Amino acid sequence: MKPVCLVVGAGAGIGGTVGKRFAGEGYHVVLCRRSDAEGLNTLVADIKAEGGEASGCLLNAAEEHTLEDMISATEKGVGPIEVVVFNLGAQIGDRALQDTSHKAFELCWRLATLSLFRVASTVCPLMEKRGKGTLLITSATAAVRGNPGQHAHAAAMGGRRMLCQSLNAEFGPKGIHVAHLLIEGSIDNETSRARDPKNAGNDGLMSTEAIAEAYYQTHLQHRSAWAMEIDLRPWSQPF
Amino acid sequence: MKPVCLVVGAGAGIGGTVGKRFAGEGYHVVLCRRSDAEGLNTLVADIKAEGGEASGCLLNAAEEHTLEDMISATEKGVGPIEVVVFNLGAQIGDRALQDTSHKAFELCWRLATLSLFRVASTVCPLMEKRGKGTLLITSATAAVRGNPGQHAHAAAMGGRRMLCQSLNAEFGPKGIHVAHLLIEGSIDNETSRARDPKNAGNDGLMSTEAIAEAYYQTHLQHRSAWAMEIDLRPWSQPF
Amino acid sequence: MKPVCLVVGAGAGIGGTVGKRFAGEGYHVVLCRRSDAEGLNTLVADIKAEGGEASGCLLNAAEEHTLEDMISATEKGVGPIEVVVFNLGAQIGDRALQDTSHKAFELCWRLATLSLFRVASTVCPLMEKRGKGTLLITSATAAVRGNPGQHAHAAAMGGRRMLCQSLNAEFGPKGIHVAHLLIEGSIDNETSRARDPKNAGNDGLMSTEAIAEAYYQTHLQHRSAWAMEIDLRPWSQPF
Amino acid sequence: MKPVCLVVGAGAGIGGTVGKRFAGEGYHVVLCRRSDAEGLNTLVADIKAEGGEASGCLLNAAEEHTLEDMISATEKGVGPIEVVVFNLGAQIGDRALQDTSHKAFELCWRLATLSLFRVASTVCPLMEKRGKGTLLITSATAAVRGNPGQHAHAAAMGGRRMLCQSLNAEFGPKGIHVAHLLIEGSIDNETSRARDPKNAGNDGLMSTEAIAEAYYQTHLQHRSAWAMEIDLRPWSQPF
Repeated sequence: MKPVCLVVGAGAGIGGTVGKRFAGEGYHVVLCRRSDAEGLNTLVADIKAEGGEASGCLLNAAEEHTLEDMISATEKGVGPIEVVVFNLGAQIGDRALQDTSHKAFELCWRLATLSLFRVASTVCPLMEKRGKGTLLITSATAAVRGNPGQHAHAAAMGGRRMLCQSLNAEFGPKGIHVAHLLIEGSIDNETSRARDPKNAGNDGLMSTEAIAEAYYQTHLQHRSAWAMEIDLRPWSQPF
Repeated sequence: MKPVCLVVGAGAGIGGTVGKRFAGEGYHVVLCRRSDAEGLNTLVADIKAEGGEASGCLLNAAEEHTLEDMISATEKGVGPIEVVVFNLGAQIGDRALQDTSHKAFELCWRLATLSLFRVASTVCPLMEKRGKGTLLITSATAAVRGNPGQHAHAAAMGGRRMLCQSLNAEFGPKGIHVAHLLIEGSIDNETSRARDPKNAGNDGLMSTEAIAEAYYQTHLQHRSAWAMEIDLRPWSQPF
Repeated sequence: MKPVCLVVGAGAGIGGTVGKRFAGEGYHVVLCRRSDAEGLNTLVADIKAEGGEASGCLLNAAEEHTLEDMISATEKGVGPIEVVVFNLGAQIGDRALQDTSHKAFELCWRLATLSLFRVASTVCPLMEKRGKGTLLITSATAAVRGNPGQHAHAAAMGGRRMLCQSLNAEFGPKGIHVAHLLIEGSIDNETSRARDPKNAGNDGLMSTEAIAEAYYQTHLQHRSAWAMEIDLRPWSQPF
Repeated sequence: MKPVCLVVGAGAGIGGTVGKRFAGEGYHVVLCRRSDAEGLNTLVADIKAEGGEASGCLLNAAEEHTLEDMISATEKGVGPIEVVVFNLGAQIGDRALQDTSHKAFELCWRLATLSLFRVASTVCPLMEKRGKGTLLITSATAAVRGNPGQHAHAAAMGGRRMLCQSLNAEFGPKGIHVAHLLIEGSIDNETSRARDPKNAGNDGLMSTEAIAEAYYQTHLQHRSAWAMEIDLRPWSQPF
């Protein structure tokens, strides 16, 4: 039976590509996303076409029980989850405080912070019993630096980052590697290339394959030398 | 008419003492807390006995409209709010992840993060019209460093800190001073003295009067040299 | 006998203005700078004209024994030093690595880092015997964030900041308050006003009087609630 | 001709092991250290015995021209340097300020900070012409947090870290990857095992092979997703 890698937030960008990377290394990958059944099926089919194993799942992470039920079903139906890639975004675009509704502020938190708490609460006890496991959490600049227009996003991602540190502190000594990966640049895709032509075609936009490699290598790290926070950015746009 | 200082989270510790400090400087202080009408009345009476002006208000910050209505009533009934002291805590004690309920995790966020968003969303537009105002936000070590057992608290305070940075980034240039005050030690009171006798009686526990002085001085800062993050700790327990 | 405040790096900007502030509060201020005897005399005369006490001293902090001898002479001839304001700059302007000579790199370190070590090594044992004292250290953005062109400055200021944390850790519990004040903006003066007219005249450039007030208030802090790092920036240019 | 990896500070710990790792990947490794010709010869012989290429060099990094001459000789005699592993330590053990001599303080800086500046000043222009290169810099907790007894070490490592950020800012966009690797734990060796038996034999002490893997993987990173700061610590001693 293949080890299982669960990707929460498996779109066409980081999530899907990290999924493909783990599938290529022999994992059964469970890909979850909120919508676009067709896109999800394509992703699963692509992995299978390359000889990998994958299954897909549509769910709304903002709703109760969805994440918990999906983890439970995965453990029963597919196998023990060894790796979780937590890649739910909560970017709602730049908005002044007056244009940030109570509802939007709460939704960001439900997706970026509470969902991680729910996933960790469900999966960490299982990993703890097995004495190992990896949580790879995608993060963003807003987790370390507030900005005008990022009230909801920064509050949600700042909470996510501190939750990662707390999870690491409790579960590191139980054999679970919790790593926070700060993505400090734009992902290379058609939209970003059109918007930012001077960084297109020269690695100035971030390759999802390169990011997926960083995720995979972080998972491979020996437990005597684990990274907790990794910052990734393009060569042409340094810190 | 006296300028108004609103204290959200006005207990016997930092909140109440900062309130007294501003009252002593000529502010009408509006003190809000969740419960203990008697304690609140005593605090108001103490301020009045020293020649100050104060009013009290019991409210549950976790409920909808409470904070918004109170701010609205204050602006109408007392006067324009010049200073907000946001002092709601969300410390639920050290708890392993398995002992941290979904409900507790959410309540921490409602009190520590969402309440600040609601207060800022209500009061910042008013301050912006007046071209000035100060938000003084109490914070804790958990806002900058996760710890085992602090999952809910760290997530909530980390979110609060990033929200402060975002508020500062938008409202600084509109004349509103948003300052995040990190309290890195135990408050001096009967409980802490009993628990930590070697730091009692020698300023090893933090004086709320000393903290209140830091809040007041931060408010007085000239706008060409505003502090955004201030870390306070006792001499005997440095960083 | 008046308490003594020693200002290392007392030019017309922060150093001189902090000196005036302490003189106005009853300190005998000893002002040290590298050159410009006339400017120094004017500063001393200004303080005396306002009823304060001050003395001046020209010295090259990059040379051996200068700082140590000056401290020793001050303690013997003027009185016990209660406050040190360490304000030596090491800004050599933006320079590419290739334009940063070994000599320039070393000089920055001698001024920004080694001089603080020498001052602290000389004055902290004296303060320790007296059970109290304050070191107020001026710092800059380069201490927390490297930049192209700031190789020498960032290395020197980064070293200074970590030295401040180490001094604080050893000497806080001995009653000595070590505070690092990060000045995150341009000082308001004729040059900066000409260079940056949109921030001139509206508090967008930093008032040295406002900064001096922050230094003085930091010195006044009660030892149960000391700040270690304080970031100051203009309202219009937030973090 | 093999690509060249230069290790500055190639003892039996991190430096030597990273050297072996790169040799195993096809690099000619140039190993520099201050003393112990025998140990150096053994290291070179070990690499050759495993089919790798290596050469050794004794030099005193605190002396003028040594590092510059060695780099120049390597470029001429061995080949273009593609990777520099900068691993000079400056740990002099915990010492109170009074026990930290001016000489010790300066030596720490010469080794930890100035030596990196000298290496970068010599090698970065060469790498810049070739449009690529990697600098992997070993760092320590003292670079991000001062401690009593660490005055010299913290000042030197804090300066090193800010220098790394400045180098990254200038040379990232020129194709040079500058990465700062924070080693937050004790290296596994006979001494540490004896001193800390509860972390011995269970990966609680850091494996130099595991650390070497992190260095190598950092070098392999695609330039659209470079890490600048990587923190490594044992599972059992999380942040």
